[in-house]
Amino acid sequence: MIRVLYQGAPGAFSHIAARALFPEGDTVYDGRVVHFRELGAALKKGEGEYAVLPIENTLAGSIYENYDNLMEFDLHVHGEYILRVEHHLMGKSGARVGELTKVYSHAKALEQCEGFFDHHPQIEEVVMYDTAAAAQFVSNHTNTTYAAIASREAADSYNLTILEQNIEDDAQNWTRFFLVSTKADEPPTANKCSLIFSVSHEPGSLFAAMQVFAEHNLNMSKIESRPIKGRPFEYYFYVDVEFDPEQYADTHDAFAQLKKHTQYLRVLGYYKKHEYSI
Amino acid sequence: MIRVLYQGAPGAFSHIAARALFPEGDTVYDGRVVHFRELGAALKKGEGEYAVLPIENTLAGSIYENYDNLMEFDLHVHGEYILRVEHHLMGKSGARVGELTKVYSHAKALEQCEGFFDHHPQIEEVVMYDTAAAAQFVSNHTNTTYAAIASREAADSYNLTILEQNIEDDAQNWTRFFLVSTKADEPPTANKCSLIFSVSHEPGSLFAAMQVFAEHNLNMSKIESRPIKGRPFEYYFYVDVEFDPEQYADTHDAFAQLKKHTQYLRVLGYYKKHEYSI
Repeated sequence: MIRVLYQGAPGAFSHIAARALFPEGDTVYDGRVVHFRELGAALKKGEGEYAVLPIENTLAGSIYENYDNLMEFDLHVHGEYILRVEHHLMGKSGARVGELTKVYSHAKALEQCEGFFDHHPQIEEVVMYDTAAAAQFVSNHTNTTYAAIASREAADSYNLTILEQNIEDDAQNWTRFFLVSTKADEPPTANKCSLIFSVSHEPGSLFAAMQVFAEHNLNMSKIESRPIKGRPFEYYFYVDVEFDPEQYADTHDAFAQLKKHTQYLRVLGYYKKHEYSI
Repeated sequence: MIRVLYQGAPGAFSHIAARALFPEGDTVYDGRVVHFRELGAALKKGEGEYAVLPIENTLAGSIYENYDNLMEFDLHVHGEYILRVEHHLMGKSGARVGELTKVYSHAKALEQCEGFFDHHPQIEEVVMYDTAAAAQFVSNHTNTTYAAIASREAADSYNLTILEQNIEDDAQNWTRFFLVSTKADEPPTANKCSLIFSVSHEPGSLFAAMQVFAEHNLNMSKIESRPIKGRPFEYYFYVDVEFDPEQYADTHDAFAQLKKHTQYLRVLGYYKKHEYSI
């Protein structure tokens, strides 16, 4: 049995990602109403084999806290999942949009449904730590003037009716998740790899590192920088590279060469690129 | 008379940076207790010639909101200032550390003085929107069991006594500020430049853009990425490059060449690198 940890209540977007990454039978999805960093600590303690961490959102940007957690908890990346975030308004049976007084959800979800609230100025927005937990709260409450903004899966989980679907302002709302664990694994079918490195403070050192990717035809699809504590204005670079599976062996040569141009280098993990369709 | 806008009350770190950037006589420093984005809006309306925006902190990382504001309000960068952030505990005359009940400050400042609060568990931490505003609040209050964490300048402004100096956990705490306005300017003495660009989604396109910097001996000292709304998993890259002042003319050739490898390109501004000493 595999235990996959995620942040939030059942029906949370992280839970949907966990089920997509482990669709088969013998899996327990273990939702935890905690800060993301507690997922790293739980993995270290052996409380689960894997965790699902949101790493970037196409509207809000990178979830920097989780980039830092990859480093702090020495996590390895085993996969990615890209999920379209859809916000639905849901309430108890009998609830009507025109009669709502309060809508509960995660702060980011409320923010991403501004247009809906502009049209319904009588509704008070109430922040909760998770969209699915908001649905659970509304479900447990008798007041039919309360509603939640959450996923369709959350409506199903808590037996709520969708009052209005897709109330998000921007349909191009996607979250990318990493599947992480404390153990390394290198599937030879991989066509994507994430790594962290730092370079010396000398002019040209960042470029010299990047040149290695170019020479080896590794396509850098993302670069993110985070400050190194105690070394002002020096950074850890988090890079994703994509390649053909037949280049797999050559990536090892590439990273051996990269080592010569970096002060710190850690390959976070090899995995299969998630081919999603917009 | 030049009007320089900043976020916070007099004595705020942004105010200190504003005075360092415009030390001469004929300047009004106009503190505004607002969100950063309101500084961009105020410049657009002509309410000031310049604004000071914090852009990164060596402990917290980039202030992504202000990267987005550079884009949203079409701001031009005219200079940078790097300020060491020092947190001092201050109270009214007669206040004693052992008798304090509440300490007011900005959330980040409280977080950066965790060690102090660990040693004084009886003190309640209270979040305010700005360190200097916290000092002002304590100054206006008669209760001598209240204190604030703020800059030495804030203690002077509000006639408070420093009860304990440098209570920050980490001395390597620096904030980098941009001096911005709605107008462009290209001082020929510049040795640093900031720019924004995006590249096509084709493999290798980011590297091709970066190669231009290398070919022209422009040292890329920072790279930051931010999502492009409506174009999932495409990014604006914010890059700082450093060069010798005699290369100034050549940077124009470099950026003309860069234009061929980018979908969007805007030079944010040329300025003099701030040479600070740790």
